[in-house]
Amino acid sequence: MTELWLVGIGTGNPDHLTLQGQRALREAATVLIPRKGAAKEDLAEVRHEILRRAGAEAQVVPFDMPVRDENLPYQERVARWHDAIADRWIAALDGAPEGPVALLVWGDPGLYDSTLRIAERLSGEVKVKVFPGVTALQALTAAHAIPFNTVNGAVMVTTGRRLRDHGWPAGAETVVVMLDGECSFQQIDPKGISIWWGGFLGMPEQVLEAGPLAETSARIVATRAEARARHGWIMDTYLMRKDERG
Amino acid sequence: MTELWLVGIGTGNPDHLTLQGQRALREAATVLIPRKGAAKEDLAEVRHEILRRAGAEAQVVPFDMPVRDENLPYQERVARWHDAIADRWIAALDGAPEGPVALLVWGDPGLYDSTLRIAERLSGEVKVKVFPGVTALQALTAAHAIPFNTVNGAVMVTTGRRLRDHGWPAGAETVVVMLDGECSFQQIDPKGISIWWGGFLGMPEQVLEAGPLAETSARIVATRAEARARHGWIMDTYLMRKDERG
Repeated sequence: MTELWLVGIGTGNPDHLTLQGQRALREAATVLIPRKGAAKEDLAEVRHEILRRAGAEAQVVPFDMPVRDENLPYQERVARWHDAIADRWIAALDGAPEGPVALLVWGDPGLYDSTLRIAERLSGEVKVKVFPGVTALQALTAAHAIPFNTVNGAVMVTTGRRLRDHGWPAGAETVVVMLDGECSFQQIDPKGISIWWGGFLGMPEQVLEAGPLAETSARIVATRAEARARHGWIMDTYLMRKDERG
Repeated sequence: MTELWLVGIGTGNPDHLTLQGQRALREAATVLIPRKGAAKEDLAEVRHEILRRAGAEAQVVPFDMPVRDENLPYQERVARWHDAIADRWIAALDGAPEGPVALLVWGDPGLYDSTLRIAERLSGEVKVKVFPGVTALQALTAAHAIPFNTVNGAVMVTTGRRLRDHGWPAGAETVVVMLDGECSFQQIDPKGISIWWGGFLGMPEQVLEAGPLAETSARIVATRAEARARHGWIMDTYLMRKDERG
């Protein structure tokens, strides 16, 4: 059975790749690469740079990402989109050389990424192997040189959508927010909360902001809008923590 | 000011190191390495293996870890222990060559690790830089080839102590437990919960168990005890998820 290798590549710094990931890319027979719109050309460039540096000799097979049907409800829209991507992979692999097929996955293949779910749809045809990568959580805390958790503390990792729908998670001390295109931190009571925000984490374009949420919120919104306008896209994440004094 | 580089090295597989981390170890003038007891010799060996593979020419300076005063309350015990480690670092660095000082940090320096908090105690004397690493969270989900989160779902990252004290976190769908020496999953109601457990993640000794918690709990306890007896120590972590049917 064909092996499908999901290789976590970190958050945009080609040097986030692990030695294990680099060897996998060198040993793969085929690498599947999504062709994206012009706005995300920077991302495609990082993938090619990673392959060049690895000395990968794999056959690079591009595939077009399908578009999501925005008329469907959220869960169904995502499920149908994943079906469509699985079909594109199968089509793209038609005629590929024998041997392992690798996919370069932003961050880590387990964390807020759909690649594993898409791969499940091929479960009769491929054997999946995952190579862990540096995630945006680590890139964020590293950039700010802060701990992820307090001593013996818990951390809630959630999404912008959930923060908007449910507010600050009950009992949480530290909250990390992923997939937030709407600066949802604006919708919670900022009293006693600090925020550490980062965009383009690990990349030369990296931007950081940090401070008490009440004072920092507007600055993040402005910095994010400016950076997004300049590059045509943005990926960002943030960590919020209740001050110890409450 | 001396730069103190905290380099995340992953979970025991020398190939978890990132290219960025490898270069940092190559460029460091000094590497501080803890001398631990015989039971954790395997860990010391991984650090030396990583330095060898990196071609590091740094001066390797060992330091002895102080012992914790078990008579103090938890938070104070940890704080005093961190003070004592900071003192050992300062003593060990006396007479070290000019240039960056590196510390190899298991997993990622931000995640349930005390190195950043110890480094804070030297804040007038050193400038801290963090190199992110693969964490046990990613090593666990990669080993089982499972996603960290459900689609748009939240994940609570917590500790064994908190799980014992507070039970299943309110509203949580996925819970990842770190620093659990007591198989605390035994203390929650297993109904409708699945578990994915791993010990020695990423290492040749890796052991995995997974399944419905009710059926898997006893098997994990036995596997863990057996692996621990064989190696003299163990590091393990696990992810639990509520079944979608509830």
